[in-house]
Amino acid sequence: MRPPARIRPTLILVVAGSLLAHAALGAAGGHPAIDMLPVLEALALILVLARLGGALFERFGQPAVLGELLAGIVIGNLGLVGFHAFDALRSLPVVEAFAQIGVLFLLFQVGLASDVAKMAAVGASATLVAVLGVIAPMLLGLGVSEWFLRGHQVLAHWFVGATLAATSVGITARVLTDLGRSASVEGRIILGAAVIDDVLGLLVLAVVTGLIQAAGAPGAGSGQAFDAPGVAVIVGKALGFLVLAVVVGRWLSRVTFKLAARLPGEGMLLSFALAFCFFISFVAGKAGLAPIVGSFAAGLVLEDVHYEDLRARDPQRRDLEHLLAPLAGFLVPVFFVLMGMGVDVSVFAQPGVLGFAAALTVAAVVGKQACALGALGPGVDRFAVGLGMIPRGEVGLIFASIGRTLHLGGERVVDDTVYSAVVVMVAVTTLVTPPLLVWRLRGQRPGRPRAV
Amino acid sequence: MRPPARIRPTLILVVAGSLLAHAALGAAGGHPAIDMLPVLEALALILVLARLGGALFERFGQPAVLGELLAGIVIGNLGLVGFHAFDALRSLPVVEAFAQIGVLFLLFQVGLASDVAKMAAVGASATLVAVLGVIAPMLLGLGVSEWFLRGHQVLAHWFVGATLAATSVGITARVLTDLGRSASVEGRIILGAAVIDDVLGLLVLAVVTGLIQAAGAPGAGSGQAFDAPGVAVIVGKALGFLVLAVVVGRWLSRVTFKLAARLPGEGMLLSFALAFCFFISFVAGKAGLAPIVGSFAAGLVLEDVHYEDLRARDPQRRDLEHLLAPLAGFLVPVFFVLMGMGVDVSVFAQPGVLGFAAALTVAAVVGKQACALGALGPGVDRFAVGLGMIPRGEVGLIFASIGRTLHLGGERVVDDTVYSAVVVMVAVTTLVTPPLLVWRLRGQRPGRPRAV
Repeated sequence: MRPPARIRPTLILVVAGSLLAHAALGAAGGHPAIDMLPVLEALALILVLARLGGALFERFGQPAVLGELLAGIVIGNLGLVGFHAFDALRSLPVVEAFAQIGVLFLLFQVGLASDVAKMAAVGASATLVAVLGVIAPMLLGLGVSEWFLRGHQVLAHWFVGATLAATSVGITARVLTDLGRSASVEGRIILGAAVIDDVLGLLVLAVVTGLIQAAGAPGAGSGQAFDAPGVAVIVGKALGFLVLAVVVGRWLSRVTFKLAARLPGEGMLLSFALAFCFFISFVAGKAGLAPIVGSFAAGLVLEDVHYEDLRARDPQRRDLEHLLAPLAGFLVPVFFVLMGMGVDVSVFAQPGVLGFAAALTVAAVVGKQACALGALGPGVDRFAVGLGMIPRGEVGLIFASIGRTLHLGGERVVDDTVYSAVVVMVAVTTLVTPPLLVWRLRGQRPGRPRAV
Repeated sequence: MRPPARIRPTLILVVAGSLLAHAALGAAGGHPAIDMLPVLEALALILVLARLGGALFERFGQPAVLGELLAGIVIGNLGLVGFHAFDALRSLPVVEAFAQIGVLFLLFQVGLASDVAKMAAVGASATLVAVLGVIAPMLLGLGVSEWFLRGHQVLAHWFVGATLAATSVGITARVLTDLGRSASVEGRIILGAAVIDDVLGLLVLAVVTGLIQAAGAPGAGSGQAFDAPGVAVIVGKALGFLVLAVVVGRWLSRVTFKLAARLPGEGMLLSFALAFCFFISFVAGKAGLAPIVGSFAAGLVLEDVHYEDLRARDPQRRDLEHLLAPLAGFLVPVFFVLMGMGVDVSVFAQPGVLGFAAALTVAAVVGKQACALGALGPGVDRFAVGLGMIPRGEVGLIFASIGRTLHLGGERVVDDTVYSAVVVMVAVTTLVTPPLLVWRLRGQRPGRPRAV
């Protein structure tokens, strides 16, 4: 450690003068329309606790997102031990809005990172792995739900199964990258399948959710099995937005960045990309869809080639992923901390929750191993593929939080018990994967990427 | 231009599947606590219009901030031509909060960029230039205000004079950088003096504002000249925060980043810097000061050396300025567009406004030329120094918006007329500087930085 630098009197005077002046200005600063102080307090606290929690988990080689959730769980449950100083943080609309923008950025990043060419290259294997990896845990989850939650309706069990479907692309990719295996055959199959099963899981969830909404609608018979018109409306809406997003969105992205490239000045790439993301999210919302649908679609249709003129102008040739990283680094942890704050620890004291959580986790881990059968071709380490598909992450939590807003026969589809169990499942599946993958793959020479 | 890439059927299927699934998910996505749609619409619109406005001005070699203001003025005054679709944008608390975080980032950047060593090196010249450059335009502005606004009180005239005091560090630095002259003697004097006169201007503003608040307080005689206790309270508060910010803040910054450097994981530097900025801003607010005081102080006490361990861990060795740039690029234009939206164009139709604005602008430009006398030493281009000190920017606008919240004898210290005139003054002084500096300095060989 070097000794602290000697502070010269001139510097003290200058700093003192600046601070005095700014402080005095502040004293006269009047009152802005919004009280920003609770927002600033909440953001400072959330940022520090998110990083401390993340570091705790990274120290043991685990993903940071678990620590962010834990930080949220701690903040959100301090009331249980009589500490109520942070209770006000739970009801700040501005912080909630920041979290919502954070999850928009996350799905925009996932959309941008979706390398469809790489996925198409491992073709049959990835698709088969994905299909098997969605069906098996979903059926097992359905069974577990039927066993533990006997009073619930059939559609609610299907919803619980659907939360087990999707492997987390982000966590999987990050673990493989950390292991230096993302370019291996196994790595590419896992990544490709993770993207496809994400999509399949969302599709299943959408159909199940649509059926639940139809069944829960006024005038509809409770628990009707297959409401074809309800599904048709969902699919019709989805297709309508799909056409808009793919055809018009691709055209709009190209036109937008062609326009932006003609404009002088700095910061064009980021601002127009964010505006594009916000606009498509807004259109999705106007069509009755969730804004995150729009941001993911915006990321998918926005291609690097659209903005290569703008990128060439940047002295450091930064791409969008690079520019988005600080924004996501600021706001995405806010989303996960707030998500953790939604976990009510007191439900674990209720009988059956821990058992249900354990059974759900086993269903998620064991069920996913069925996908190993789908990895075709000689010399592929099928066991490694199965292990790599275990982690559930953001998507499972997003599903669970959607389930909390749905009602079936007057009951929430995902009640506190199920929500807490899903959080446990996400935490455990994400926790066990890195050590298992390290155990399976370490010592093997990193696989050379094969020609497609 | 390359022809648009052929879209392979596989890719269409994959993208379609993803979008369909995400769209369907969205259809089932329920309703978040906040209605994000107006926020997304506003952000998309503000980002695009800010960049279009900025590009328009950059096309003619002018600073982008003028275009952002213009974009805001246009959005904010479309109601005058019977177009009311954007009226709702003016009352979105979340967007207002984003703008407030934007101005925090801006002052955090200014604080970080404040190179006190460079300023101390040009010593006497910069200080003398700053002092002359504050006194002269302030007295001229006072005279102009007394001439045009005969009914107003003396303190209100002083306030108008104070808005002319501070040269904009950001705009000045950017113009000099564009001209490749920021390392020349003239450049260093201008930059050093700009920082000092910023501080002096804020100090003057604080005292004048404190006197106004004291005069306007219940029970106080209206228009009392020098309320020593009032000033003492302001100075006491400022000193209290000063001690905290410099002594505790420097210690806290060192400790914070020493802690952060021990934590594994990515994104530590940015998150802890933002948390530090938000926390000091929060403390400033709790002390009754404006949060921007805190963010500027946070930037001043946060030194590169505090986080060099963290920076060494980053593969690209990015510093805080680099990491903050995308955040500021997203949110700072939101602040200036919202500031422009506060300009009511209809006041220009009132008699006397344009004349007042013109006189104020002349006072700002001519008054600042007195500072040229302060540039000591042989071979210094004093005229260039005077021209370089002309631009007023963010600080003048912030002052004006503070004046709108102050009252004296039942009237706003800065009414719509004065506010609009200040905006015109900022626009014109910022507009005339680049061409004048280019005219004065172009053709001269870029000055070699002299040893201090």
